[in-house]
Amino acid sequence: MITGKNYIGSTLSASNSKTYTTFNPQLNTANNEQFYEATSDEINEAVLLASVAFETYKNIAGSKKAVFLNAIADEILALDDLLITTYCKETGLPEGRAKGECGRTIGQLRSFANLVAEGSWVEATIDTALPNREPVPKPDLRKMMVPLGPVVVFGASNFPLAYSTAGGDTAAALAAGCPVIVKSHPMHAGTGELVASAIIKAAEKTGMPNGVFSNLNSSGIDVGVQLVQHPKVKAVGFTGSIKGGRALFDLAAKRDEPIPVFAEMGSVNPVVILPRALEVDTDTWAKTYAGSITLGAGQFCTNPGLILGIKSDMLTGFIQGLSQEIVKIDPTCMLHPNIYESYKKNKQTAFDQSGTEVMADYSPAVNDNYAKQAVLTVEGDTFLKNTKLHQEVFGPYSLVVQCENKKELETIISKLEGQLTGTILTDTIEAKDYTEVISALSNRVGRIIFNGVPTGVEVCPSMQHGGPYPASTDSRFTAVGIHSIKRWIRPFAYQDWPNELLPQELQNENPLQISRLVDGNQTNKSI
Amino acid sequence: MITGKNYIGSTLSASNSKTYTTFNPQLNTANNEQFYEATSDEINEAVLLASVAFETYKNIAGSKKAVFLNAIADEILALDDLLITTYCKETGLPEGRAKGECGRTIGQLRSFANLVAEGSWVEATIDTALPNREPVPKPDLRKMMVPLGPVVVFGASNFPLAYSTAGGDTAAALAAGCPVIVKSHPMHAGTGELVASAIIKAAEKTGMPNGVFSNLNSSGIDVGVQLVQHPKVKAVGFTGSIKGGRALFDLAAKRDEPIPVFAEMGSVNPVVILPRALEVDTDTWAKTYAGSITLGAGQFCTNPGLILGIKSDMLTGFIQGLSQEIVKIDPTCMLHPNIYESYKKNKQTAFDQSGTEVMADYSPAVNDNYAKQAVLTVEGDTFLKNTKLHQEVFGPYSLVVQCENKKELETIISKLEGQLTGTILTDTIEAKDYTEVISALSNRVGRIIFNGVPTGVEVCPSMQHGGPYPASTDSRFTAVGIHSIKRWIRPFAYQDWPNELLPQELQNENPLQISRLVDGNQTNKSI
Repeated sequence: MITGKNYIGSTLSASNSKTYTTFNPQLNTANNEQFYEATSDEINEAVLLASVAFETYKNIAGSKKAVFLNAIADEILALDDLLITTYCKETGLPEGRAKGECGRTIGQLRSFANLVAEGSWVEATIDTALPNREPVPKPDLRKMMVPLGPVVVFGASNFPLAYSTAGGDTAAALAAGCPVIVKSHPMHAGTGELVASAIIKAAEKTGMPNGVFSNLNSSGIDVGVQLVQHPKVKAVGFTGSIKGGRALFDLAAKRDEPIPVFAEMGSVNPVVILPRALEVDTDTWAKTYAGSITLGAGQFCTNPGLILGIKSDMLTGFIQGLSQEIVKIDPTCMLHPNIYESYKKNKQTAFDQSGTEVMADYSPAVNDNYAKQAVLTVEGDTFLKNTKLHQEVFGPYSLVVQCENKKELETIISKLEGQLTGTILTDTIEAKDYTEVISALSNRVGRIIFNGVPTGVEVCPSMQHGGPYPASTDSRFTAVGIHSIKRWIRPFAYQDWPNELLPQELQNENPLQISRLVDGNQTNKSI
Repeated sequence: MITGKNYIGSTLSASNSKTYTTFNPQLNTANNEQFYEATSDEINEAVLLASVAFETYKNIAGSKKAVFLNAIADEILALDDLLITTYCKETGLPEGRAKGECGRTIGQLRSFANLVAEGSWVEATIDTALPNREPVPKPDLRKMMVPLGPVVVFGASNFPLAYSTAGGDTAAALAAGCPVIVKSHPMHAGTGELVASAIIKAAEKTGMPNGVFSNLNSSGIDVGVQLVQHPKVKAVGFTGSIKGGRALFDLAAKRDEPIPVFAEMGSVNPVVILPRALEVDTDTWAKTYAGSITLGAGQFCTNPGLILGIKSDMLTGFIQGLSQEIVKIDPTCMLHPNIYESYKKNKQTAFDQSGTEVMADYSPAVNDNYAKQAVLTVEGDTFLKNTKLHQEVFGPYSLVVQCENKKELETIISKLEGQLTGTILTDTIEAKDYTEVISALSNRVGRIIFNGVPTGVEVCPSMQHGGPYPASTDSRFTAVGIHSIKRWIRPFAYQDWPNELLPQELQNENPLQISRLVDGNQTNKSI
């Protein structure tokens, strides 16, 4: 049952008279449940509780954190149909997507459970003492990763499960040993509360300290601002717009004690289509990209919003093929009327730029909030001069840039802002003639794809989801995969610490049998 | 020979009419050499050259970078007496320290050479494709660490060799594949130029691209500001004051594209002396700490500036012992009259705080710029209320806080700012009665020491040199040891990339035989 209240640890709380509702974009009508905006006192209470919980939670063994994470997964599964129907009515997304995203969320939780149960993720590094070394003895030093402290996670509008309440950021932070306070996304507050209830149940069942998790409702920016500025908050995870992410980054940087903000923000995910790809496979690429651009109404951070090629009849043919294919696809519902209105506005802004040519713009009548896909084209020099055309248009939209030659292509790529992904469509032989282009693209992205599409982010250790600013605020970390745990931890060294007082990960006997770097050698052995 | 000019890559340049000199604090007189302040054009030229060099340098094999780093070490050794005498006349530090620091610098360069020659530091992570997976095929994904781009390193006043021109930051960045632009420290500009000449010689001899290293002179803040704001600079390393480090951090955070600033700043390095240590070893600890506080005229970032104990006759005895021991030690010369004047001023400010009692203040006449050591004491509640007493007094100074009880001790520790180190003097049995105190200290530091002194930073993989703000701007990284390379790199993923086009580190054959995480297993094998 959805109460509309905040979870301050395991306590449901609703002190505010200010409430709000979610919206069903398919029916174009507000949902019934009222959500209570968190008050300043409730925020403070949640953070203080997290701070106290940290003192216990930071020392809980990996095996027990694994039980907790798996229990969260189980409790989410137990929500069953109620979760799926709530998800659908708050997002307008189809049931298949809801179930798929739920599966991904469960998979993420279990993969972090496995990571911390195994234990080697702490990167234990040991240098044993040399008491007789001259001129001074060498001390015994042992280092491992420890959690940063309470973490604030902002729910993402476009991933109500996989990047919100119990999503990747939360799973990684809890695995690291950091209590989490979620600033629930107002567009799917009911989905958020259900998942929060699952986390709270799991925490209670597995004996985690109260305050290891809280869920705060908020329809505006005040709750988020107070959370990021709270002295006891030690890091922030965010997925959303550049404007929102940068605002949080700036707040965190101005604190007396600055803290890291991992904001995964906008990206146009440039795709470079080279002559060989057009020679071999124009039709297939046109069809494939029509599908990638419109997938999930274009509401993925890896949506290919920019396609770059070198002027030729073949490129013209590709643009025509893409334009014909894309209008064959039925438009789908966007997440919220506000997102739909932004899409219409941003698309129109692109249309209005001098030099752009509209190649496809879906015209038949559709339901409210259904996004009509579009393809534009523009010449390279026009694109270079007009940075408005470099901006993301969040939705089923792509701009094809026709460059004069290889040099202009390279110049354009080198002037792009940072991106999550870059894609090259070519073959192995031609790729060797475009090393400067590929090198320039590599400098601007976190992941580079050969003959594929950027949509579809595989959750696995080798995934890099993040890239140079503004794709993310810190390109040195990923938001997807087990290595995302690295955002919430810091190295901590013990010098000449007695063996029996060391954490198990660093004891001579290596009771957890984890992999450690001991005197320069990676080993699972004891000392 | 010292020319006083800037190195813009391999070119000596002196466009400015503005010059400055270094100072010999032992003789209390300026040195002769004139150094040319870098102009705005020279700065821009150095950064653009670094940016071009990056396109080549980022792809240079680890084995070749190792040859370069070892050549730098060899060229520094070849400077021989000229380097040592220049160091001494610019710092007032004794020859033994100069030689020791030179050895450490060489050792750091060689350890990074070994790291990149071996190659596993790139954390190669591979998940092979599952083309038949349902509902969608799994792509082939391969991730490794790549360099961020041109890095600016600010020379540190207190480590003219080990944390300046070819010091830890530079060695780590060059090892990572990042060109380096050093903002030379004005107090040891001659030492800096000599070392810069060694790096340039090494770069030329080993065929590195021009611009892989530049050295810019500057006596003020303008050169540093322009460097940190330059769009082509991608990261910054700094060791120095909180004021200076925070200013650079703020500049970098305000850029259109924010960049990481690793500033290793102030620390008072709290030492907790518990009753058992006093029972057993009061005299030894008094003597040991008198030595640690005065080591190098107290000019180490790990200097123990704060000692915390619980009120007792034994603690009184320790304070008396420490005070008697410390005045037996001959004062030594500080790095510069400005640093000496700051020390005198900050010491006097501490003396003037209500409730402080001066226990030792070296009184005999000494040479100019020689620091007179001091020990103060204060009650716990006075210390808690007066945050002026929490500030670092850079020099041979320490403040002993007498707490009422264990609870007050814990409260004080939990209210301290972030620190590089914390130390506990106790025994294994007593330590178990002070778990809250040790836990509170652990939250505030990067390294915790058992029955030792914080001075003496061992250079080894398990060292953590960095801590919660303001000890450093980013507690997630170390400034000492091979893991400091992690500051200058980011993960980069290849999706479905043809084997022959992949970097060697990620190719199926594993030609470098590095350790990789392949489909979840750490292995040196090929695929």
